[in-house]
Amino acid sequence: MADAVDLIRAKRDGGTLAEADIRWLIGAYTAGTVAEEQMSALLMAIYFNGLDRFELAAWTEAMISSGERLDLGSIPAPTVDKHSTGGVGDKVSLILAPLVASCGAAVPQLSGRGLGHTGGTLDKLESIPGWRAALSNTEIVEVLKATGCVICAAGPGLAPADRRMYALRDVTGTVESIPLIASSIMSKKIAEGTSALVLDVKVGSGAFMRDLGAARELAHTMVELGNAHGVRTSALLTRMDTPLGRAVGNSVEVEESVATLRGDGPPDLVAVTLALAAEMLWLAGLDADPVSALSEGRALATYRAMIAAQGGDPDAELPVARFTEVLPSPGSGWLRRLDARAVGVAAWRLGAGRARKEDPVSPSAGVVCLATPGEEVIAGQPVLELRSDDRARFERAQEALRGAIEVGSQPPEPAGIVLERIR
Amino acid sequence: MADAVDLIRAKRDGGTLAEADIRWLIGAYTAGTVAEEQMSALLMAIYFNGLDRFELAAWTEAMISSGERLDLGSIPAPTVDKHSTGGVGDKVSLILAPLVASCGAAVPQLSGRGLGHTGGTLDKLESIPGWRAALSNTEIVEVLKATGCVICAAGPGLAPADRRMYALRDVTGTVESIPLIASSIMSKKIAEGTSALVLDVKVGSGAFMRDLGAARELAHTMVELGNAHGVRTSALLTRMDTPLGRAVGNSVEVEESVATLRGDGPPDLVAVTLALAAEMLWLAGLDADPVSALSEGRALATYRAMIAAQGGDPDAELPVARFTEVLPSPGSGWLRRLDARAVGVAAWRLGAGRARKEDPVSPSAGVVCLATPGEEVIAGQPVLELRSDDRARFERAQEALRGAIEVGSQPPEPAGIVLERIR
Repeated sequence: MADAVDLIRAKRDGGTLAEADIRWLIGAYTAGTVAEEQMSALLMAIYFNGLDRFELAAWTEAMISSGERLDLGSIPAPTVDKHSTGGVGDKVSLILAPLVASCGAAVPQLSGRGLGHTGGTLDKLESIPGWRAALSNTEIVEVLKATGCVICAAGPGLAPADRRMYALRDVTGTVESIPLIASSIMSKKIAEGTSALVLDVKVGSGAFMRDLGAARELAHTMVELGNAHGVRTSALLTRMDTPLGRAVGNSVEVEESVATLRGDGPPDLVAVTLALAAEMLWLAGLDADPVSALSEGRALATYRAMIAAQGGDPDAELPVARFTEVLPSPGSGWLRRLDARAVGVAAWRLGAGRARKEDPVSPSAGVVCLATPGEEVIAGQPVLELRSDDRARFERAQEALRGAIEVGSQPPEPAGIVLERIR
Repeated sequence: MADAVDLIRAKRDGGTLAEADIRWLIGAYTAGTVAEEQMSALLMAIYFNGLDRFELAAWTEAMISSGERLDLGSIPAPTVDKHSTGGVGDKVSLILAPLVASCGAAVPQLSGRGLGHTGGTLDKLESIPGWRAALSNTEIVEVLKATGCVICAAGPGLAPADRRMYALRDVTGTVESIPLIASSIMSKKIAEGTSALVLDVKVGSGAFMRDLGAARELAHTMVELGNAHGVRTSALLTRMDTPLGRAVGNSVEVEESVATLRGDGPPDLVAVTLALAAEMLWLAGLDADPVSALSEGRALATYRAMIAAQGGDPDAELPVARFTEVLPSPGSGWLRRLDARAVGVAAWRLGAGRARKEDPVSPSAGVVCLATPGEEVIAGQPVLELRSDDRARFERAQEALRGAIEVGSQPPEPAGIVLERIR
């Protein structure tokens, strides 16, 4: 068996690591025999030289094998999940999981928390009084059986090597590597036990991948990896230049999700949710109509049941921020763009996100878009409403928004939100 | 001030680090604020993207500033040192330091120990009963003043950041990077306080750099770095395909060095030593004749004075190994080559070198070349004599030597040992 230094050098020099070597590496890293500094040097070498499909499959398998797999064998309906690479105002999961469940699938949505300028699904749902993100494996299966869907935290037992490696990548500048991103996402999703998976790979200023080519490569890599592990997987590339919908934050996004489930959603959010729902139902082999499930209220009923099953009160008042400020339009004309990243950073600074993993988030902080791209605005008209419980936070949020509102003499080109589908 | 992750990402993405950032990084690494795993990721990024001349100068300066500088200002003679990148049978320092000192220069030769298949000057001299490698700064200056030269260990106070970083590079596959090698060597040599320096950059199978292009780049990098720091620096690229001289080991190399100082040295060793001496004297601005200093015994007298000044007995019997084995010629014809690396590994396995830094070495173990390239041999004639105090070591040493003796029907092309001079 080669030692860690030999394997680091092999990858550094453009070589290929054998399956057994990768299995040994991840196992020894988990056990502490391979040191953090050795793994970080290897991760940087992988950043430069990549992993081929066989190495990536072995790496992902080793990450999965570092922990337990959820057994969803007792669920009678076909299981299908969705993963988003993260965006601004991306509350799709809250609508999509009950929508697809109301069409006959079982949706086990194990989610994460927000870090940086993109929000986290669990943080949003935790603004509902009583709702619990942490469920045992038994509870996950119970809620799934009872309501057809569940949105909860991925427990520490799933792919624990990924948890440690992600923390290491975060402090060593090795996050932005397509094979490392792909194996991190897919190891957790495969360990979760779903039979099918749709990936929502966001592209644009507010996304992790700003470039279409890189987003496409990531999507292809993950689709191949999922299918190689027996999970029917496909991906949509969707636009993330402007926030999705009008609300960015926690309770404000829950409210917009419920409005969408009531049939009163913003067009971009509805479009991307229905496209993902159609893809999930296709993967699950179900011939159902998500449009009528939404318009006839079945998705809303499923949502309410799911929230209640996890201890939440779907009728509870949600927290409202004590203070607001508005950001006016810098000119008259057509609103061409609201920069997604700037709005995301502003919401984050207002308290909706966290700087460190252990920080709490404010349920009520956020940004509401009073006008959206394609609308006509006049100079001075409020375009963004900033919300926070802490007045001191407005100044830095306003700073983040400098130049974020683009007004022009022509309306923006109409553009579909779904850019590509990759199967 | 940027944080460590920003700087790692900048280097990873092909950017240039500012002088202040590099100073901060090395300082924070020394202080423990920048973690080992962060430094190893940065080192791997430097392996791929290099350091430009300004970054390298700042990096080296920061390494020097992590410790003390030796003050040789009280030495009346011009100071000049030599550094070799390491070879097999490379006992040049033992002859060169007293030779150049006997021509009027002061030679402060702070040396290291052997690791791997290349020997260490200190290990060799320690086979002389009583000789001490560890001197205080005061003692270094005293011996230099008294004898004109000193060969001793570089104390822990010189470039301590390099010491830690070298250990990190060793376990993270980041040793083979030209800027990192250059700054590691040069930070110690500059901190040592010498005014001039000749680099003996070895090229070939037994050297760290097997390729002429890489050796030339390393030499150019170090020459520029030295001159930029006010140390008059030049380099010779010298051949290292076959062991230098006939002896490889510790006491056997001391014996060969003394023989050379007596005027009875092997031609390749004499040639490379005189070439380096001429270059050192030129750098020191001295117009002296090293050939007559050698032939008239002045160099030998200086050597004896230096050994005695460091506690050694120049007349003492040196340790002789208890057991020997010979390796016969595989055929009849011209001895074309003895593979330097194979001979180095064999000597190492016989006990002359160490597997780990803390291991002791055997003073008497080694290999003696009974014939050298260019001589005619007959099948079965002893070509190598293996020496060890431990019979169990012969088997693995013989294994290392499989195929190391090349015999052919034509004599080898005559080739000069000095390949290039870089000023």
